[in-house]
Amino acid sequence: MAGAAVVLLSGGLDSATTLAWARREGHACHCLSVDYGQRHRAELDAAARIAVKLGAAAHKVIKLDLAAIGGSALTDASIQLPTGGVQPGIPVTYVPARNTILLSLALGWAEVVGARHIFVGANAVDYSGYPDCRPEYLRAFQSMANLATKAAIEGRGIEVCGPLVAMSKADIIRLAIELGVDPSTTVTCYQPDAAGRACGVCDACRLRKDGFAAAGIADTTRYAQ
Amino acid sequence: MAGAAVVLLSGGLDSATTLAWARREGHACHCLSVDYGQRHRAELDAAARIAVKLGAAAHKVIKLDLAAIGGSALTDASIQLPTGGVQPGIPVTYVPARNTILLSLALGWAEVVGARHIFVGANAVDYSGYPDCRPEYLRAFQSMANLATKAAIEGRGIEVCGPLVAMSKADIIRLAIELGVDPSTTVTCYQPDAAGRACGVCDACRLRKDGFAAAGIADTTRYAQ
Repeated sequence: MAGAAVVLLSGGLDSATTLAWARREGHACHCLSVDYGQRHRAELDAAARIAVKLGAAAHKVIKLDLAAIGGSALTDASIQLPTGGVQPGIPVTYVPARNTILLSLALGWAEVVGARHIFVGANAVDYSGYPDCRPEYLRAFQSMANLATKAAIEGRGIEVCGPLVAMSKADIIRLAIELGVDPSTTVTCYQPDAAGRACGVCDACRLRKDGFAAAGIADTTRYAQ
Repeated sequence: MAGAAVVLLSGGLDSATTLAWARREGHACHCLSVDYGQRHRAELDAAARIAVKLGAAAHKVIKLDLAAIGGSALTDASIQLPTGGVQPGIPVTYVPARNTILLSLALGWAEVVGARHIFVGANAVDYSGYPDCRPEYLRAFQSMANLATKAAIEGRGIEVCGPLVAMSKADIIRLAIELGVDPSTTVTCYQPDAAGRACGVCDACRLRKDGFAAAGIADTTRYAQ
């Protein structure tokens, strides 16, 4: 038995695949979603369904008003979402310190449930240029975490696992299918419409579309365009 | 000009003194308080008054439901607060990963306002045994933070400053007075009563009382006992 793990679950394809990976490793998965003032709730609804479908031991949604900090098109409605194609550099959808904040909450819950592993679907390849998705960042978070908690200083260290960190989107899609994740149940789009259809033109949609094409797998996502 | 800084401000004596320290260094201080489901609001009310009094550039309160994670007497009303005296080891008032979560939020805001410094009133001496108040922890957080943000990878690194980390409570009290902080405006107690009086018997009250005695300074805190 691999023991308890906390899995950050956004409801997107990457985090769903990460959950399936942790389940295959035999972890009792405590899934954490954060309602941080996203533009839409479709992701969180998807997370709840995915947690059940993939046999999570628990699923918790924590509310945190990141919009109060601002600085991102994902939490600030006054910033326009780019839809013209993925550009080089760090985009306006970058949420300041998001993965650090999410991993910190996961660390707190990991200590409460006695988990020795935290799983996160960070990906440094088709990653839209987010600094907190790189392997060196995840390693630094783990080092810090192992000084931060009562559990760690009592000898129950924490491992931060990013199984997708070096994979291409195409590889992630292949892995998702292999692990029994139905991609059509996941929400990647930054701005789905009221009918739950993906916009098809934001960076997240473009990376997803390209990934399916590169993997040679039919994309069953419902796109508005 | 020392530039913008984010200061974690709980409303207690240590964080108020830290704010005064950062102000003396010439920083434009953006004070961050987190409404994390504490047992009482007296601390947050004190934080708001202290921010104004010490000339903060801004004060923000972010809501975060840490009680959803549980695991601490400070956020879980079903866990009894110890009042019999400070014991060795890590007490039940330890909030899992609290400083990591608070510093992460500070990191996000620091990036938005362009701050290069984060100040925290962590103290490793009379610290009640919290692992995330030690200097090696603060250094590890800083290392992680410098890989985490867009600002950091673009060359605008962050410094995590814990000016009180190696000071005794008596030294902190002397410094507070020197910097013009009125200790009676700060709230340290874990469970003040409805009239705003400190309980006098929780660990935080005991450490504060001992600190005033050791500093040879009259303790003007209103205690219920």
